Amino acid sequence: MKKKEAIDYCINLAKNAIENDIRPNPFVGAIIVNQADEVIGEGFHQKLGGPHAEVYAIEQALQNTTDLSQSTLYVSLEPCSHFGKTPPCADLIIRHKIKKVVIASLDPNPKVASVENLIAAGVEVEVINDSTASLLNARFFTNQLKKRPYYILKLASTIDGKIADYAKNSQWISNADSRQYVHDHLRSNVDAILTSYKTVIQDQASLTIRNIKGDIQETNVIIIDKNLELLEKQYENLPIFYPRSASKIILITAKAPSIQLPENIKCITGIFDEQGLLFSSVSESLLEMGYYKILTEGGIQLNSSMIHQNIADELYWFIAPSILNDVNGIPMLGLDEFRGLDKKVQLSLIETKVIDQDVLLHYHFE
Amino acid sequence: MKKKEAIDYCINLAKNAIENDIRPNPFVGAIIVNQADEVIGEGFHQKLGGPHAEVYAIEQALQNTTDLSQSTLYVSLEPCSHFGKTPPCADLIIRHKIKKVVIASLDPNPKVASVENLIAAGVEVEVINDSTASLLNARFFTNQLKKRPYYILKLASTIDGKIADYAKNSQWISNADSRQYVHDHLRSNVDAILTSYKTVIQDQASLTIRNIKGDIQETNVIIIDKNLELLEKQYENLPIFYPRSASKIILITAKAPSIQLPENIKCITGIFDEQGLLFSSVSESLLEMGYYKILTEGGIQLNSSMIHQNIADELYWFIAPSILNDVNGIPMLGLDEFRGLDKKVQLSLIETKVIDQDVLLHYHFE
Repeated sequence: MKKKEAIDYCINLAKNAIENDIRPNPFVGAIIVNQADEVIGEGFHQKLGGPHAEVYAIEQALQNTTDLSQSTLYVSLEPCSHFGKTPPCADLIIRHKIKKVVIASLDPNPKVASVENLIAAGVEVEVINDSTASLLNARFFTNQLKKRPYYILKLASTIDGKIADYAKNSQWISNADSRQYVHDHLRSNVDAILTSYKTVIQDQASLTIRNIKGDIQETNVIIIDKNLELLEKQYENLPIFYPRSASKIILITAKAPSIQLPENIKCITGIFDEQGLLFSSVSESLLEMGYYKILTEGGIQLNSSMIHQNIADELYWFIAPSILNDVNGIPMLGLDEFRGLDKKVQLSLIETKVIDQDVLLHYHFE
Repeated sequence: MKKKEAIDYCINLAKNAIENDIRPNPFVGAIIVNQADEVIGEGFHQKLGGPHAEVYAIEQALQNTTDLSQSTLYVSLEPCSHFGKTPPCADLIIRHKIKKVVIASLDPNPKVASVENLIAAGVEVEVINDSTASLLNARFFTNQLKKRPYYILKLASTIDGKIADYAKNSQWISNADSRQYVHDHLRSNVDAILTSYKTVIQDQASLTIRNIKGDIQETNVIIIDKNLELLEKQYENLPIFYPRSASKIILITAKAPSIQLPENIKCITGIFDEQGLLFSSVSESLLEMGYYKILTEGGIQLNSSMIHQNIADELYWFIAPSILNDVNGIPMLGLDEFRGLDKKVQLSLIETKVIDQDVLLHYHFE
């Protein structure tokens, strides 16, 4: 088995996990290959608090043989060396005298990293830095390295990039299947949806997850609301304030409120400038509250400022087969500045998808 | 053989033609099916002035049998009934006593149409109106029904729909492969390229076809130049004025020039309003000059006004993986008006294509 093949095997194993079951943990897959080049054990991290991929792989291998001293462990992410919710995988590797460990991507957390421990214990270690393995855990790496949530932008526009006409009419630019896709694949797979108080009011948004049968599921919502306008009496019946059993509304404001808030509404304070929220001022709070992966469904101001602040990580862009052909329509993106073409933001295409007549383009930001 | 299957067979035959060899004629494919449901003859229109599809199909069938009286002719477009460059196909069908003719789309030209003649001669006729057969000859139908050239818009923009920054810097928004695609698949397959004098000056455009080896081929160019600015002395060395052996520059102007023009430059006069050229004022002239299919490579004003005048037929849109994020960048589309979302222009998606990191979306206008 070639190295690249073995790593791809691990990555495909890792992908069997449902991210909602493991977050904030990363996706990890591991295999044990014996001297005869056979896979004798495999596994993936399945559940937060449950065994790591290496544990499954080693346990399965031990059912085949008691001697792993001539075996190689391939793993998509550096094994852990610390006592977290489970004992350190590095110890397990050392204990079973595994000959060699091939690692497809390093763990950015120095407390967790194990390469040095493994080498010190006489294990042969090879680190590959596989781009697919890194992309698989883009959310995890962003959380760890940038100490902030991973942000996914969702845009839906006409071909000419409009999300509403001059009078802000905006309903149903994308088709029903695209909107269902947002529920099934985007809203369902994040810790919260981020938007602005303006969008919540204007769209009368509830931001729930509605499955194809029409069943409604709650979501956590983070709303940028500098002056806490949503707490005004006139807005108390907005759809966003539906009765919540398990979800929360987080208001990001410039100044903490003096009044007592209902249990499911929390405020955190951030720093604002003339372009809006400085995301760096709330990143740590959001991570601490468990918001590791956030979907943004906002308007031009929020979308543009996130890109400007270099914190947009992924983009899902639904393009409807229509053209407004009016420069006064509301664009999906754009700050009012004078930015040269040399300062444009670069993205990488992940996938294209045709949804009925809409096109979905999926990018990550470079 | 089912009817739909037979029609698709004809359409696929028709597509074997190279449009440059047949234009202004349509794509046509035909088959003869005998009583035993076998295809005993097939053909497609291959060359302007050459035999029609039905002739090939019937000739081939006659090599199998002398009796076609129990056979069915399937044809993707209504057979002709007039003496054009070849004798009428309807006569051939009647002469060989073909039992039944199944037609996938009608010919819009009443002089050419043959259904009535066929029925009068006792041939059983069935007309299907197949949407694929109609789409195949969209250019032909537009020429015939709307008495104007078929217009293809080419746009290349960032994700946020910009073709240049605030200072009009625009070079290389799309990648090298996308630009080569324009040469190989768009410029190569039209009768002329349409643009404005502004674009010709600003982009220092030559608008030739450059193949992958770097060989240059001339193209006809139609330039909207109301006041014939391009004839000013200061512009005489623009790249567009390269020495032309076989191609022409057509200037569309408000007023014919009084001076003698070089042989390869022609002027036609059109009517202009404050938004620019009224295309209806030059449609017939362009058709008469042999410009049946035109590729537009222009700026916001030309693109938008063609859509506004409802004469854009197809769109090829190259999307580069970048975002300018500046509302002051130059957009690819948009008039300065106040158009409601209910007035948006609808398109249909034909194809999506990934070209390296660019995405090409191909639509036709509804």
